[in-house]
Amino acid sequence: MFRTILIANRGEIALRVIRACREMGIRSVIVHSEADKDSLPVRMADEHICIGPGPSSKSYLNIPNILCAATLSQAEAIHPGYGFLSENTSFSEICADTNIAFIGPPASAMRIMGDKVSARAAMAEAGMPMLPGTPVLHSLAEGLEAVKQVGFPLMLKAVAGGGGRGIRLVTRQEDFERTFLLAQNEAREAFKNDGIYLERYLGKARHVEIQVLLDHHGNGIHLGERNCSCQRRNQKVLEEAPSPHLPAELREEVGRTAVKAALAVGYRNAGTMEFLVDEQNRYYFMEMNTRLQVEHPVTEQVTTLDLVKEQIRIAAGHPLSIRQEDVKFRYHAIECRITAEDAEADFRPQTGTVTQYIMPGGPGVRVDSHLYPGYEVPPYYDSLLAKLIVWGETREEAIIRMRRALDEFVIEGLPTTIPFLRRLIDHPTFVEGEAYTRFIQEEAVALGIEQASRKAA
Amino acid sequence: MFRTILIANRGEIALRVIRACREMGIRSVIVHSEADKDSLPVRMADEHICIGPGPSSKSYLNIPNILCAATLSQAEAIHPGYGFLSENTSFSEICADTNIAFIGPPASAMRIMGDKVSARAAMAEAGMPMLPGTPVLHSLAEGLEAVKQVGFPLMLKAVAGGGGRGIRLVTRQEDFERTFLLAQNEAREAFKNDGIYLERYLGKARHVEIQVLLDHHGNGIHLGERNCSCQRRNQKVLEEAPSPHLPAELREEVGRTAVKAALAVGYRNAGTMEFLVDEQNRYYFMEMNTRLQVEHPVTEQVTTLDLVKEQIRIAAGHPLSIRQEDVKFRYHAIECRITAEDAEADFRPQTGTVTQYIMPGGPGVRVDSHLYPGYEVPPYYDSLLAKLIVWGETREEAIIRMRRALDEFVIEGLPTTIPFLRRLIDHPTFVEGEAYTRFIQEEAVALGIEQASRKAA
Repeated sequence: MFRTILIANRGEIALRVIRACREMGIRSVIVHSEADKDSLPVRMADEHICIGPGPSSKSYLNIPNILCAATLSQAEAIHPGYGFLSENTSFSEICADTNIAFIGPPASAMRIMGDKVSARAAMAEAGMPMLPGTPVLHSLAEGLEAVKQVGFPLMLKAVAGGGGRGIRLVTRQEDFERTFLLAQNEAREAFKNDGIYLERYLGKARHVEIQVLLDHHGNGIHLGERNCSCQRRNQKVLEEAPSPHLPAELREEVGRTAVKAALAVGYRNAGTMEFLVDEQNRYYFMEMNTRLQVEHPVTEQVTTLDLVKEQIRIAAGHPLSIRQEDVKFRYHAIECRITAEDAEADFRPQTGTVTQYIMPGGPGVRVDSHLYPGYEVPPYYDSLLAKLIVWGETREEAIIRMRRALDEFVIEGLPTTIPFLRRLIDHPTFVEGEAYTRFIQEEAVALGIEQASRKAA
Repeated sequence: MFRTILIANRGEIALRVIRACREMGIRSVIVHSEADKDSLPVRMADEHICIGPGPSSKSYLNIPNILCAATLSQAEAIHPGYGFLSENTSFSEICADTNIAFIGPPASAMRIMGDKVSARAAMAEAGMPMLPGTPVLHSLAEGLEAVKQVGFPLMLKAVAGGGGRGIRLVTRQEDFERTFLLAQNEAREAFKNDGIYLERYLGKARHVEIQVLLDHHGNGIHLGERNCSCQRRNQKVLEEAPSPHLPAELREEVGRTAVKAALAVGYRNAGTMEFLVDEQNRYYFMEMNTRLQVEHPVTEQVTTLDLVKEQIRIAAGHPLSIRQEDVKFRYHAIECRITAEDAEADFRPQTGTVTQYIMPGGPGVRVDSHLYPGYEVPPYYDSLLAKLIVWGETREEAIIRMRRALDEFVIEGLPTTIPFLRRLIDHPTFVEGEAYTRFIQEEAVALGIEQASRKAA
């Protein structure tokens, strides 16, 4: 096992890795910017090395300085956390060249899966379902042929369109011919380009993702799914496991397919495959995240596995500590991302000093946070302040507990998203387990993040 | 179900009850002393009523004022927590007379089990093993007869002795006659009373207690045991579940016997039977605690039941939510009691203002505490500041996690027992699962709570 791991990250995820290291008897070395010198992970790591000024490009993205710190501290491995260098193929390659274990996938697999086009090609090859779509079509005959693959409902999209223009929804075969010709005419006139392509329309799609773990001995398992449909501008704000209303057989099928596909591209370590799932429970591959996810704790709570420890063990060449048939799911877990943003003012990021900080406690509550009373939120980094994770025997119990825990959570000194999250978990669409990716946007008024007048305009 | 519960307690246990109420949709009303007006439970309860000045006798033990508050706030039930009025039979009776549900056992059972003599008689009657002992003996013949019941090793105790005087240990039959006569002579000379009694000597006895739950429909279950052998002057400082080295059959046997005995005396609601367990795994009833225990969270973590919710449901007349065969044990859980005491100065209680407070977090950690930065620890009450509970798949993992969590825990402004607890969980006797009730006392020097010179003296 590694004796020393360097942590090339900050905030709550750096703390998360330090906790795993400490419980594994591994010395932790953290690199940090000048802005983070008083941060909790810097205080808690066994050793800390300042690698540059506040802006990420000068510190957390400064590869030469990070490698220099790794050499100085005799680190045998680097944990990149999420963000920053975690999905940087060159960094992973340089680590390999310098004989430092990169706690993540091999550069080759990262390269394939990091590019959306090559990832989709590789996943389709491995038998993963893709959102049905067509190349560009120029005639009704081509359209009528293509429609057989895509199915209904579908979108007719002008290839030269954009910003919502040139898009038409078709729900039944009998409307197809008329709408296709109309769309083609319109596109010719509006964009001087009559190219049209078809894409399956998912309606109220859910974001479901599968956590996979693969070792260097040919073993791969999945740890079930997370539902991350509560998003604002593609930023997840709340995640849960299991996904409401997802049949157990489907979980098994998507999970098995994800593992098979990951093995096929030579993927190793922890990774996440993201899918859109439509109202008929058909699923379509979107992309893979080749790193630890912010929302990994909900999977930890329902499987009782420690994902960071697993990552470290895999990187050290150990076989997986568990077989697929021994992965047992229990509880329902929900995570809220509490950020330094003013939800009522278009989620404008906030900085400031935390003047009071009281974490919720008691049964079924976990907090992953680098905050403490007196902490100054610096302006350079993402706005995540704390992850509040709760679990219960049922989804209903977890929701009730999340309400209780959000009510207990005190962060004073700057606006946070706690009031918004409190409204979110009370919204009937969420409570019913029916949240879809555009739900927060469509319910912005009810969620108190948009004025009724503005919405109407 | 009750609409309103009044909480007749303070500190972390008041917070614990508020959390359960909130998750059950029950309005919580807390009574408090003037000294506690700014406390966290007072801020978090739905309603709070000041019932008197700081000293307990004028507030938390002031029955008329508490009942008045219950009437004013239309409370249908009172949760007494632990300590204060929780084991006060008259209070429980007055509640019953006033038509307020007392969330605890019926006064009749409380009366029987609250008195050590009647409790022992009732438990012996119900078939519970008692520490073998004899009435007062005045002759060797009586002694030789009695020894057959007591067995070896045994203690010869002068009935008039005290403070450790007049006690002799006998480990083998062949030493008995000589020692008995010696002790009798000695007692006659020293105390002018040659009365001697015999008692089984347990040596390195462990404190093991069984959690029982009984409803008003004739159902009773046990939730396994807790080991609370880490004590200082009969005050528990660390508790764990399950008890190390306790055979599963023994757990079942003690548990079954405890439930049977509790049913026999008409006990209802949550209760704990305390036992001494000797090195041969023989167990002997000590006493019953007719209330929720400070250490109940370790049982919650290994059974995933919420004991406070169960207490409330039982008091409201609901049947138990679970049958014995459905109680599943998982994980190993440990609780440390962090108190405002200076362990290095004979555990002298401390008061003061909490100037910095950073709770540990991450996986497998729970904190039950009423502390917050700026909180003033009042001088009137017991010194418990926080309960730190951790769990892991194995005892080893739980110990490692406790180390990590204690290292993370920051309480500044007054001395606490964190450094002592940190040494305790590193002591080989504890690590091996061999702690016995006198262990902390005997290892006081190694645990840093006594000077080597003083110990030698």
